[in-house]
Amino acid sequence: MMDTEKISQHISQKFNDELENIRERVMAMGGLVESQVAQALDAFANHDESLASKVIENDKLVNSHEVDIDEECARILAKRQPAAGDLRLVVAIIKTITDLERVGDEAEKIARMGRDLAGRSGDAPTSRLQYGALMHLGQHVRKMLNGSLDAFARMDIEAALDVIHLETQADQEYEAISRQLITYMMEDPRSITSVLDFMWSARSLERIGDHANNICEYVIYLVQGKDVRHLSLDEMRRLAKEDR
Amino acid sequence: MMDTEKISQHISQKFNDELENIRERVMAMGGLVESQVAQALDAFANHDESLASKVIENDKLVNSHEVDIDEECARILAKRQPAAGDLRLVVAIIKTITDLERVGDEAEKIARMGRDLAGRSGDAPTSRLQYGALMHLGQHVRKMLNGSLDAFARMDIEAALDVIHLETQADQEYEAISRQLITYMMEDPRSITSVLDFMWSARSLERIGDHANNICEYVIYLVQGKDVRHLSLDEMRRLAKEDR
Repeated sequence: MMDTEKISQHISQKFNDELENIRERVMAMGGLVESQVAQALDAFANHDESLASKVIENDKLVNSHEVDIDEECARILAKRQPAAGDLRLVVAIIKTITDLERVGDEAEKIARMGRDLAGRSGDAPTSRLQYGALMHLGQHVRKMLNGSLDAFARMDIEAALDVIHLETQADQEYEAISRQLITYMMEDPRSITSVLDFMWSARSLERIGDHANNICEYVIYLVQGKDVRHLSLDEMRRLAKEDR
Repeated sequence: MMDTEKISQHISQKFNDELENIRERVMAMGGLVESQVAQALDAFANHDESLASKVIENDKLVNSHEVDIDEECARILAKRQPAAGDLRLVVAIIKTITDLERVGDEAEKIARMGRDLAGRSGDAPTSRLQYGALMHLGQHVRKMLNGSLDAFARMDIEAALDVIHLETQADQEYEAISRQLITYMMEDPRSITSVLDFMWSARSLERIGDHANNICEYVIYLVQGKDVRHLSLDEMRRLAKEDR
């Protein structure tokens, strides 16, 4: 099994430093994206227009992280021509930052819907319940995102599998919110526009969970050298055990 | 400016063949994904449950294409240690197939919603109009997807910019459909569940347009060696001109 130490066994200390530096940059991008999601949810829940605008503005920062890290990866591939575990690390990073960038996009969407809600006069009478369920789902996918970054930082398969396990629950929460929102819309058609903002936000959160899931699959690929995408959780666990 | 010929100037004919082979496999995957989108739209429009099931089943095939091509890219990176244009080609392929796989996911979602609609008794009275607008958006994003694959096959920056240009129109069509659907829901709350299937399908189509757009940005990166993501269309055109 590959571990952090083996990755570090390079003849060139400079190459080590470069790989370490790029991992740190992914973690910094991950931290920024986590904070974007948290702030987008705050802005949505509190009808905070200025916080929403800040999140929307900061998405450019997320994008520039992606472009910079991508360039650095291409540079490393060209200059160092990494093999085996190092190569998998660079490929996993290229994929991970694509997902992080898209998490940033979803955070931006949630912020935009928060701003729309804030701008609209009045609110659906059922909104308190809706906020509660949405924020609960928000906490859940934030936990998944945090867990996926943690699994990436420590290259920890078990941690990655734990996050993947959480996804079923996020999907169920999302389905329940969806059904509830459809009921609200039917009962009070005037609320449809506002309720749809909740619907889109719930879907954005569900997608953030998907991206966290993807990142965990890259971690498993990175550590095991096996592509586990499109496998069931049980199949992944079996593979992880075989490897020990 | 890099062109198809330069990419082919390799000392090793076998490496040439490998790169050509992997480009062909991307095109094959692209063809499959295009057919998935077309069939999903047919299944949706004609309430064709068996076609919908076929699309859902075939998504596994799309996924296995992605995993296989990814493995082949990792193998080429490790064995051939490509530089410059070849390296960009492999990186662009790794990114392109991620987008193609997600287009496949959206096609599967549209097929699922088609199946749901077919299974539900009755239909919203306004549905004929809705189908028309949705199918029009469908044609539009299919054109974008086809154009992006064509730009990739010919490594043609102009073709890529043309597709990127089409995205604004797709976004506008999507917004118009969205507004129209909200009106329908307000007028006839009993139709909400069915109308939401249209809403999700329209959003899936809009996302397929986004993915086609991404693929075109990789084509520009591949040909020019410049990362144009997150630039405006005008900025991209300026860069493309500078390069000549």
